[in-house]
Amino acid sequence: MDLDDLSIDESRIGRELSRLAEFSAAPAPAVTRVLFSPEDLAARAYLSDLAAEAGLTVRTDAVGNLFMRWEGSQPDLPAVATGSHCDAIPHSGQYDGTVGVLGGLEAIRALQRCGSAPRRSIELVMFTAEEPTRYGIGCLGSRLLAGVLEPAAADALKDAEGTTLAQLRATAGCTGELASVELASGHYHRFVELHIEQGPLLERDGVDIGAVTAIAAPAALRVKYGGPGGHAGAVLMVDRRDPLLPAARLALAVDRAARESGAPDTVATVGVMDVHPRAINSIPREVTLEIDVRDIDGPRRDAVLEQIDASAEQYGNDARCMTAIEVLNADPPATCDKTIVAAIEAAAAAAGLSCQRMISRAYHDSLFMSLAAPTAMIFIPCREGISHRPEEFAAPSAMAGGVEVLARTLWQLASEK
Amino acid sequence: MDLDDLSIDESRIGRELSRLAEFSAAPAPAVTRVLFSPEDLAARAYLSDLAAEAGLTVRTDAVGNLFMRWEGSQPDLPAVATGSHCDAIPHSGQYDGTVGVLGGLEAIRALQRCGSAPRRSIELVMFTAEEPTRYGIGCLGSRLLAGVLEPAAADALKDAEGTTLAQLRATAGCTGELASVELASGHYHRFVELHIEQGPLLERDGVDIGAVTAIAAPAALRVKYGGPGGHAGAVLMVDRRDPLLPAARLALAVDRAARESGAPDTVATVGVMDVHPRAINSIPREVTLEIDVRDIDGPRRDAVLEQIDASAEQYGNDARCMTAIEVLNADPPATCDKTIVAAIEAAAAAAGLSCQRMISRAYHDSLFMSLAAPTAMIFIPCREGISHRPEEFAAPSAMAGGVEVLARTLWQLASEK
Repeated sequence: MDLDDLSIDESRIGRELSRLAEFSAAPAPAVTRVLFSPEDLAARAYLSDLAAEAGLTVRTDAVGNLFMRWEGSQPDLPAVATGSHCDAIPHSGQYDGTVGVLGGLEAIRALQRCGSAPRRSIELVMFTAEEPTRYGIGCLGSRLLAGVLEPAAADALKDAEGTTLAQLRATAGCTGELASVELASGHYHRFVELHIEQGPLLERDGVDIGAVTAIAAPAALRVKYGGPGGHAGAVLMVDRRDPLLPAARLALAVDRAARESGAPDTVATVGVMDVHPRAINSIPREVTLEIDVRDIDGPRRDAVLEQIDASAEQYGNDARCMTAIEVLNADPPATCDKTIVAAIEAAAAAAGLSCQRMISRAYHDSLFMSLAAPTAMIFIPCREGISHRPEEFAAPSAMAGGVEVLARTLWQLASEK
Repeated sequence: MDLDDLSIDESRIGRELSRLAEFSAAPAPAVTRVLFSPEDLAARAYLSDLAAEAGLTVRTDAVGNLFMRWEGSQPDLPAVATGSHCDAIPHSGQYDGTVGVLGGLEAIRALQRCGSAPRRSIELVMFTAEEPTRYGIGCLGSRLLAGVLEPAAADALKDAEGTTLAQLRATAGCTGELASVELASGHYHRFVELHIEQGPLLERDGVDIGAVTAIAAPAALRVKYGGPGGHAGAVLMVDRRDPLLPAARLALAVDRAARESGAPDTVATVGVMDVHPRAINSIPREVTLEIDVRDIDGPRRDAVLEQIDASAEQYGNDARCMTAIEVLNADPPATCDKTIVAAIEAAAAAAGLSCQRMISRAYHDSLFMSLAAPTAMIFIPCREGISHRPEEFAAPSAMAGGVEVLARTLWQLASEK
């Protein structure tokens, strides 16, 4: 098929993104869309409708991953897949994940408009809960697809209200065993994900497209400190065992550990620090920290993790506080598939767009899809590298460029024998 | 009147306290009862019914303070008042405040059972929002009664949802101008409050009754730090301005400032530390601390406050974060009325109970009532000094002893010409 006629409907991508952003628990421009919340369910329904309208076959698995298939001329060959996520952390923006889902849909529609079906089927995937908001662990859907999350353990996860994933997914209509989610070996021929960079490099260097060659290794820890609490007026300082003190020391130690790792690629963040009972005149009884550590180098990341773990233990002991440390996840970094990277570079050249190779510091469903199929990612610039904030923004032309590169890449990969 | 027949209904106090504890937003044994929440409104209705049943005249002022009056034989003389609060901080217990309200009611009922009316009227007061939970400032009701909180400023206070006190009290049916709440000079002859100690001294020393001679001076600060936030994976450490770092340093500095004040009576606590947007993979954008500082010595307390304030400023600058420091309140300590203290000691002796003088480290509505009328407090032991926790406990016999001392004290003060 001749892709010279390929044309991307830039304004339609913008309209659909704006509509999707309205499914939010936070007022615009902020977006909050948590796994299986009413907003998430509404977004899923909207997406299914769009896919059906494009003639795609829609299927959902037991954890709510959504598969939207454009049948190829040789439907028995493993399909080429693309996709991303639509959930959004509290008070974030409208481009993270969604560009890869709605952009993937537009790539398929653009290819359809060229007139022929691909050799291999092309499947658009919307992954469940890439964000760790509800269960403290990211990429629930892609972890299960890749078979690296034990189904029983996943079903037993509890959210802040004590609702298990098993209970929650049942209320969302996702029945069936989680064990059925894992993809058979060779199920997909290749996987490619379109995403905003979430960093400043492409914009700074004036480059249109990033061809991702590796994805940094994320890890997450939860640390809880407990003490007896008491009245803030009546308990003298010498009689206190205040869990906020080791928590505060640990927050500083997390920052220090990343800064002193010896490499700028190490990052560590305390994004959650919950104080219970949270009253100005009560000494805290329990403080919970959630800590995110990443690096493109696995062993260096693990060394930082171990240092944080040791500090967490020591500070709890110093303060005579109950201490509980839980590793939520510690995943290896991913190396992207060279064939796809080359296809992305060729597609960018054909589209007249500049392209550079880069690593992804943020993690994505691709990190886990790389365990199930050869995988790579396409990045587009976003304004000032801002993400996970209401000000997150990608220019319509940048999105259209990314979608064109994705469409050309998908066509190339789907044409492989 | 002969008080030899005075008898306290110990089991009734227990039953009424248990019933009141059921009006809670947290499951038993925890109690959560926040100003003008459905639970608070239900507790108010319950109390009004009990007072009406005892033949008391019930009146509410514009901020929801509840006045329950037993008319004396010389009703034109300024009344003697007693009372405390029924609101409860999140996940606290069932004795703080409530013992002084339901115990005050039982003291009046016990005196009624002796057969005669007092010379001066006796008024039971339930103060609105002794706890600072909803508006960050404690003793809303008694501050307004004492005229030390500007009515317009009080009406403009906003809770976490942005609801002003003016809006909230209107929905609770408290109409009228807040300016009308302030008591005229000489309105009350004297005020005495029964309360659990919220400290370990009476229990440790095996003493039944504490006669409070002074109340420690409380102060509260709110400190907010702000930064740009961003994605926890994509923003490198050198590019961060994380507001959690100055907040963590400040939490440690608050603790240190109190420990190094030179006196064991200085206490300082960070009871609230809110992180926004509170997501494991987002760098915090805003962190808010609420800090409580107390001392029985005003100038020493103020020196600690100033030190905390200076540290807060410096840490914000060091981290290149937006810094906002707000003094929520800084009240002077109170000295109790010698006549009432002597009456409490005589009442304890008449009841066959041991008594010692002490200071109150926790603050109470009495701190502000002392500005409107001669004031003192009666303390009873509570188990292990525990308060503001579900395990808070006062023995029925200890409560009955406190109520008897309160009844005898009220009778003595109401008999004064």
